[in-house]
Parts: sequence; C-alpha cells; structure tokens
Amino acid sequence: MVDLSPIGRIRTPIEETSDAPRQGQNASIEGTIELDPAYEPGLAGVEAGDQLLVVWFAHEADRTLLELDRVEGRGVFSSRSPARPNPIGLTTVEVVAIDGADVQVRGVDMLDGSPVLDLKVPLD
Amino acid sequence: MVDLSPIGRIRTPIEETSDAPRQGQNASIEGTIELDPAYEPGLAGVEAGDQLLVVWFAHEADRTLLELDRVEGRGVFSSRSPARPNPIGLTTVEVVAIDGADVQVRGVDMLDGSPVLDLKVPLD
Repeated sequence: MVDLSPIGRIRTPIEETSDAPRQGQNASIEGTIELDPAYEPGLAGVEAGDQLLVVWFAHEADRTLLELDRVEGRGVFSSRSPARPNPIGLTTVEVVAIDGADVQVRGVDMLDGSPVLDLKVPLD
Repeated sequence: MVDLSPIGRIRTPIEETSDAPRQGQNASIEGTIELDPAYEPGLAGVEAGDQLLVVWFAHEADRTLLELDRVEGRGVFSSRSPARPNPIGLTTVEVVAIDGADVQVRGVDMLDGSPVLDLKVPLD
C-alpha cells in the first residue's frame, strides 16, 4: 500500500463530473490550488506564466472498472478515462498568480475540491 | 489520506538511485512491468509499439525535502526532482511486447522494483 498525504486541494468551477471538460478543451477555465501552508516553501521559483503539471486524485472516480464500457476491447490502461484502479489525474496548467500558498491557475479540468498530490515542471 | 494499492511493479536494470538516467537519456533501457494478474483485463487494446505513460512511486525518494539543496531559491514543485512530499514518477515508455500481465517496455528510468500505480495513454 502506498500512503499519500495530499499537499492541498484545488478549487475549480466544476461541480459535477458531467461538467468536466475533455482534455484540451479546458484552456480558459481558472481555478486555485490551495496548498497546505506547510508546503509553501516548495513553491520557491514558481512564477506567473509558468506551466505546472498538477498531479491530483480523482476522488469520485470508479476504481472498480478495468474495461471501458463505451469502447469494446479497450482496457482502462489504453485510455485516459478517469475510471481506473488508482485514479491519478495529470493536468498541465498555466500559473496566473501566486499569493502565499494559493496558486491561481488557468486550464483546470478537475472537480472542485480534488486533492492535489504533487506539482512538477512539465517535460514540455 | 489517499490510499493507493499498486497495480504491479516494474523490473529494471537500475539498482541504485545514482545509476538512474536523467529523463531523455533512458530511451534504450528496457524493463518489464509485472502487473498483478487481477489487472490484466485493463491492458486490453495495448499493443507493441504503443507509447504508455507509467505512473509509479519513487519508494526510495526523500519525502521531507521542500527546497532543492543544489539550486538556491528553487522549491521541489518548480523541478522534476524525485525528492518531493509525494514522489510520484511519470515516465513515457514504448511497449516492446506483452505476455499476459507482463509488459516489456523500453525507456525506463525507475529503480528496480518500483511500485507501479497506473498506466495511461500519453497526451501525445
């Protein structure tokens, strides 16, 4: 078992799974990563205009599904479906502004309140 | 707390952290994702030649570090350092062959035995 303690949560205007945009259609949606203040030192060097890869947990995803019901012969590991045994979401966002441990970003596709596990510089 | 149960482990020739290649220098190193057989149905549709994004856990990483010691004024969230509170690794590999729940891949950079959390189709 791998135990991960979220580093914060992300606030977004997306309240229902059915409202979540498909990847690539979310460029203009803004949200705020609310880091636990204990992790604020980890943000040093992150600046407005930077791209950040948000690693988050899709806490409402179906973790029991292994095969996609909408596409015959396709397993979850050959897809980007949020339904999967460990529903870890990866979304590249643009930093709009930083205020202490709050990072305002553009390009979100996660449900409001989703736990954030990690932030990284994207490979590009 | 987010509890994740690994879907398998990856076998690689990398035995020590100091032997791990930097990203982009690992194109030719082969390894094998040994999925727990219970998850094999999730591989449906994955084929030799496909690109797969491996989400894995850097189980030997330092989880206490928030600032990089080698670069002043840089926090872990503005880096790709494996040291971070939730050391989730992301590596894009090429599928060489599939044998049941074993997936032979090329392009690994993780330590031998690292827990695998998820497999996804890369964004491009």
